[in-house]
Amino acid sequence: MSHNTFGHLFRVTTFGESHGPALGCVVDGCPPGLDISEQVIQADLDRRRPGQSRFTTQRREPDQVRILSGTFAEGDAPARTTGTPIALLIENTDQRSKDYGDIRDKYRPGHADFTYDAKYGLRDYRGGGRSSARETAARVAAGAVARLVVPGVTVRGALVQIGPHRVDRARWDWDEVARNPFFCPDPVAAQLWEAYLDGVRKAGSSVGAVVEVVAEGVPAGWGAPIYAKLDGEIAAALMSINAVKGVEIGDGFAAAELTGEENADEIRRGPDGRPMFRSNHAGGLLGGLSTGQPIVARFAVKPTSSILTTRETIDRSGAETEILTKGRHDPCVGIRAVPVGEAMMACVLADAFLRHRGQVGERATASFGPA
Amino acid sequence: MSHNTFGHLFRVTTFGESHGPALGCVVDGCPPGLDISEQVIQADLDRRRPGQSRFTTQRREPDQVRILSGTFAEGDAPARTTGTPIALLIENTDQRSKDYGDIRDKYRPGHADFTYDAKYGLRDYRGGGRSSARETAARVAAGAVARLVVPGVTVRGALVQIGPHRVDRARWDWDEVARNPFFCPDPVAAQLWEAYLDGVRKAGSSVGAVVEVVAEGVPAGWGAPIYAKLDGEIAAALMSINAVKGVEIGDGFAAAELTGEENADEIRRGPDGRPMFRSNHAGGLLGGLSTGQPIVARFAVKPTSSILTTRETIDRSGAETEILTKGRHDPCVGIRAVPVGEAMMACVLADAFLRHRGQVGERATASFGPA
Amino acid sequence: MSHNTFGHLFRVTTFGESHGPALGCVVDGCPPGLDISEQVIQADLDRRRPGQSRFTTQRREPDQVRILSGTFAEGDAPARTTGTPIALLIENTDQRSKDYGDIRDKYRPGHADFTYDAKYGLRDYRGGGRSSARETAARVAAGAVARLVVPGVTVRGALVQIGPHRVDRARWDWDEVARNPFFCPDPVAAQLWEAYLDGVRKAGSSVGAVVEVVAEGVPAGWGAPIYAKLDGEIAAALMSINAVKGVEIGDGFAAAELTGEENADEIRRGPDGRPMFRSNHAGGLLGGLSTGQPIVARFAVKPTSSILTTRETIDRSGAETEILTKGRHDPCVGIRAVPVGEAMMACVLADAFLRHRGQVGERATASFGPA
Amino acid sequence: MSHNTFGHLFRVTTFGESHGPALGCVVDGCPPGLDISEQVIQADLDRRRPGQSRFTTQRREPDQVRILSGTFAEGDAPARTTGTPIALLIENTDQRSKDYGDIRDKYRPGHADFTYDAKYGLRDYRGGGRSSARETAARVAAGAVARLVVPGVTVRGALVQIGPHRVDRARWDWDEVARNPFFCPDPVAAQLWEAYLDGVRKAGSSVGAVVEVVAEGVPAGWGAPIYAKLDGEIAAALMSINAVKGVEIGDGFAAAELTGEENADEIRRGPDGRPMFRSNHAGGLLGGLSTGQPIVARFAVKPTSSILTTRETIDRSGAETEILTKGRHDPCVGIRAVPVGEAMMACVLADAFLRHRGQVGERATASFGPA
Repeated sequence: MSHNTFGHLFRVTTFGESHGPALGCVVDGCPPGLDISEQVIQADLDRRRPGQSRFTTQRREPDQVRILSGTFAEGDAPARTTGTPIALLIENTDQRSKDYGDIRDKYRPGHADFTYDAKYGLRDYRGGGRSSARETAARVAAGAVARLVVPGVTVRGALVQIGPHRVDRARWDWDEVARNPFFCPDPVAAQLWEAYLDGVRKAGSSVGAVVEVVAEGVPAGWGAPIYAKLDGEIAAALMSINAVKGVEIGDGFAAAELTGEENADEIRRGPDGRPMFRSNHAGGLLGGLSTGQPIVARFAVKPTSSILTTRETIDRSGAETEILTKGRHDPCVGIRAVPVGEAMMACVLADAFLRHRGQVGERATASFGPA
Repeated sequence: MSHNTFGHLFRVTTFGESHGPALGCVVDGCPPGLDISEQVIQADLDRRRPGQSRFTTQRREPDQVRILSGTFAEGDAPARTTGTPIALLIENTDQRSKDYGDIRDKYRPGHADFTYDAKYGLRDYRGGGRSSARETAARVAAGAVARLVVPGVTVRGALVQIGPHRVDRARWDWDEVARNPFFCPDPVAAQLWEAYLDGVRKAGSSVGAVVEVVAEGVPAGWGAPIYAKLDGEIAAALMSINAVKGVEIGDGFAAAELTGEENADEIRRGPDGRPMFRSNHAGGLLGGLSTGQPIVARFAVKPTSSILTTRETIDRSGAETEILTKGRHDPCVGIRAVPVGEAMMACVLADAFLRHRGQVGERATASFGPA
Repeated sequence: MSHNTFGHLFRVTTFGESHGPALGCVVDGCPPGLDISEQVIQADLDRRRPGQSRFTTQRREPDQVRILSGTFAEGDAPARTTGTPIALLIENTDQRSKDYGDIRDKYRPGHADFTYDAKYGLRDYRGGGRSSARETAARVAAGAVARLVVPGVTVRGALVQIGPHRVDRARWDWDEVARNPFFCPDPVAAQLWEAYLDGVRKAGSSVGAVVEVVAEGVPAGWGAPIYAKLDGEIAAALMSINAVKGVEIGDGFAAAELTGEENADEIRRGPDGRPMFRSNHAGGLLGGLSTGQPIVARFAVKPTSSILTTRETIDRSGAETEILTKGRHDPCVGIRAVPVGEAMMACVLADAFLRHRGQVGERATASFGPA
Repeated sequence: MSHNTFGHLFRVTTFGESHGPALGCVVDGCPPGLDISEQVIQADLDRRRPGQSRFTTQRREPDQVRILSGTFAEGDAPARTTGTPIALLIENTDQRSKDYGDIRDKYRPGHADFTYDAKYGLRDYRGGGRSSARETAARVAAGAVARLVVPGVTVRGALVQIGPHRVDRARWDWDEVARNPFFCPDPVAAQLWEAYLDGVRKAGSSVGAVVEVVAEGVPAGWGAPIYAKLDGEIAAALMSINAVKGVEIGDGFAAAELTGEENADEIRRGPDGRPMFRSNHAGGLLGGLSTGQPIVARFAVKPTSSILTTRETIDRSGAETEILTKGRHDPCVGIRAVPVGEAMMACVLADAFLRHRGQVGERATASFGPA
């Protein structure tokens, strides 16, 4: 990962600011011959789009994607990837100028306003500029391409905690995720969250959240020791999402409290002769490589720093002042982080798959074990 | 990060297996003219060295480092870095062959044995081969060089949790860290841990732990959006350490439970005219860039999978069997992960500093704010 | 360099096909605070634009550039770079569909048609797709940004040979370059070339050429041993331009015929106390690092493979056939390679400068010699 | 390529100075399961070893290689690569201290002495330090590993020109290369060179040379547009060799004089149904991708700057002085550049192969053409 590019063989470079003319990305290294269309990408973008409920920012952005390169439709055949870079463009349409007057000169506590100024000496303060979560639209578009690269793999995400309220895993239902505005897999929690978040929203406040992303269908052996461990790549990818402050794999921090006996995911021979694990404390990763079990990652999203309560801060000259942020914002940015988390996981896996196939060749499609 | 190299301008490539002839690293991109000696590197290595108490592996390794390149002493002057790659070599001396008989054909549950075989079709099973924590000796050596690159920065680590037992932050004393075999900053906790870990050790069991690493003296503005956010680089670096399953910055997962009001680190003008924060929920990072506050990261280490209790598993042929791991091992690998975590943080910061200086030049040493 | 990105700290990623909707690039790592405008970039693009004389392709493309991100104009102030990625977009407007009928199924000898099909199994054959020299418009746009990064450095190019006809270096006049359609520094040669190239053009043939690029104002010390030698970076950059088959620095291949005595660029103390070289056989580079002298590189461009003479070839099914390429093309693609060569040199130097400043800090602006 | 590492998936990092304790490399990304031994690597090193004739430096170095990691021999089976980094170590044994007295304070014209000091402010002047051609021993060792990665590919090199004297291509015989001390494929030229180079040697002078490297057996489709074109990767690799000032592919600079008709490598259907080219002006590369023909590259090596004739120069203080370099050196460094050129070509191809296999999977082993 380097500045605004991530990935090694499947490489995504994003660009764009919240209130600039457009944002987008270039996806480089995509294999050739994959069926692709703007519709497929749009479907993922629509899941992340703002303004779909009262619990996300009311900014109205169609987030319509255009493919500018890297695909080709011969005659009447559907478009396919050509192996050359795929540029994806999303125009910004709803940038209300009045919204950013307050944050031009003052630094929101808990926001990147201050650090961008400290680093660069100037910043595009309109809507947070480059540090805005709008950048994640480009990630979701790239993630839609990544999903095409690893077709046997399913990547799904869910919100598992808002503020102090967690889902009950006994009620986990993936189908439920699409039925509520929170990507919540637990219908009871979803109802509770609705009331809770209405309170937060009306108070002009915000809360944090935890997102879980699960990748199923990844065979054993993806990833690479030592510094390209899949754990590390996933951690970097998820931690790069706006407002994320923590990442864990499998049992994560809870593993600190386990004994070696408890933590051992015992292995049996499955009915198909392949390894079958009794548990998945490891979250599908051992030694940085996939085990063949579902890969399970979680990340913590802090509350939005744009709130209606006055906070003490300084301005660009260093003088003390106060700030209160009006305008449209997300009471819980963690909600829309769910499709973003999925996209990042998909990109990491696409990259890991291509590198794995590069290094081990036909072994990449072999089932298991030594020659 | 790519396979066995991490960093962009300050680049570390490690090599070596647990029971091979040697391990080491190449540190590339180190600035010229820095005073350096084997003693300085050895001091850090000695903190990580095994066999220093009954709570770490009893393998006897002097871990003596040799500098093979990249430094030059003119006449009687002390050696200085020359700007060319610094190769550091550590010979393995204590590789008891009898130790690895058990793990040759069977996969330890919770260990990388299985995934290495699945990926590569063969593995050096002696002592865990490349997946052994011995590789971290090379990281610590590299970290000692990294510390020279950012001389105003202090990187310190401490163990803050073993199994279910946490330190009391009210008793935190950095000086205490050197006085007990756990790198524990709380003398009361250290005593409790001693008794607790003796029990674990005698039972042939193991437990997890949590390590905290703090970097002080980093000025505002290091790091780079979007995919080279300092949070992401730190997360990848710490997650790449053996047995780590979670990483968090500042409040980390606890931030999910905060409101925007609670999470806002308010800013005042300090006595020196520079920004002064009222709190540090952000752990010193906003928008992926340093705020000038201490950078605070924590990581969770799972328990060692080499335990004296029988676990069910399969062998290389896929047949069901059982395993019980005799031989030397760490009852809590989290202990020796403390200097490793420091080293990784130091390497990430050295890299971030050089990149920052590259992109912004003299601004890199400026104090704060817009032009 | 990796697929469609080049550079390390100053990173350029290009995208786009000859007959797709648009092409462009993302420039990542540009320092903040540099004055920038579409006009500055357009000026460089206009020098490369097709259809400006009868000696280049008659395709009519305005090559109008739009800045999509990475710059910010506060109030009435001129726009400045913000340090975030700068996306540049150029829409394609003149893609005559009838032109590519011939090349859909047959491989032009000497063209990438065949190898793209062999690699990817499909290709965008319209106008050569990604392998078209239209991609170089994005390079020139990126190069215009690169020039802003190294303001004391002047990068100029000239055509020094067309077919068998070379310039006379005794008549070299940089001002002459803008006065003829060949970027030729020798007015006499320019006249001769006009007649010669008219003959080539009317015959539906094509010829090769040699371009020379000179960078003045680069201080001593840029570049980095061993695999990031400035020679190597320049060679890779120039060799990546369409149709280039050779690159040389300084005396280049002629150095093979020199003795050590002849090749030695003797050094004297200049009037300003700084080193002054008696000659520049080295082309401004020793050991991969700049000497402070002008950096001189040349590259050879082969003739276009689209010609009006019938050549034997095969089609996509592998059957033998013949091909004759009608439509618009450059009788000498080397001409328009001049601004492209300048752009690549500028990008390499911008990157080398940022890396150098990163590694050596304030030494980057020091004049010379040991501490 | 970045500083002291080259390659993307097959990555080589070298270290070491001429008169330091050792030099070596780390080869990362090598596929697992390849038979490997120190003997195989040593064989390549022996071809490059100094002191094998009176035409190369008289420094006596056994250049004995040790494999430190990344291979494993199970039981009595031969060692195989494990997929983890392969560290190769070569100890320096013959560093006569008296040799470098002269070059400690004075800059040899045409040598990197000056630029290293300008960049770093200090340098290891003993034997040229890092800029010494001794570094290429590590490249040759890495190249021996690279050859194992692409077993169907044969990479051979030859010296085709010394000073003004070229080989006669009509007499080209690959078997001849091993029969003379020049890697010369033309027995008549070899004789002439012997007399010529004896003169150069006795005069304490030096001359340049041209090396040709040919890779046979590379299937169509390796490489990657645009900035990872195989041409560009080869150019960077060869240009990174000490003293190289020019690189060309196929007809190279001579292509500038060709017409499109002459340059077109016409294609026929071969007896096996696969494409068969009538000529190879392209040197086996079109659009940056391999055509399936032999890949032909040449590079020019300038004369050594260490000569017995006095040259004017300055010293470290900037004062004017003279220098005459005694001690052991190569009258024609181009000779020993032959195995180095082969090694670099092998490394580039290994890397290109792994990346190609990563991006296109099973297509990597397919013969030709669209799906």
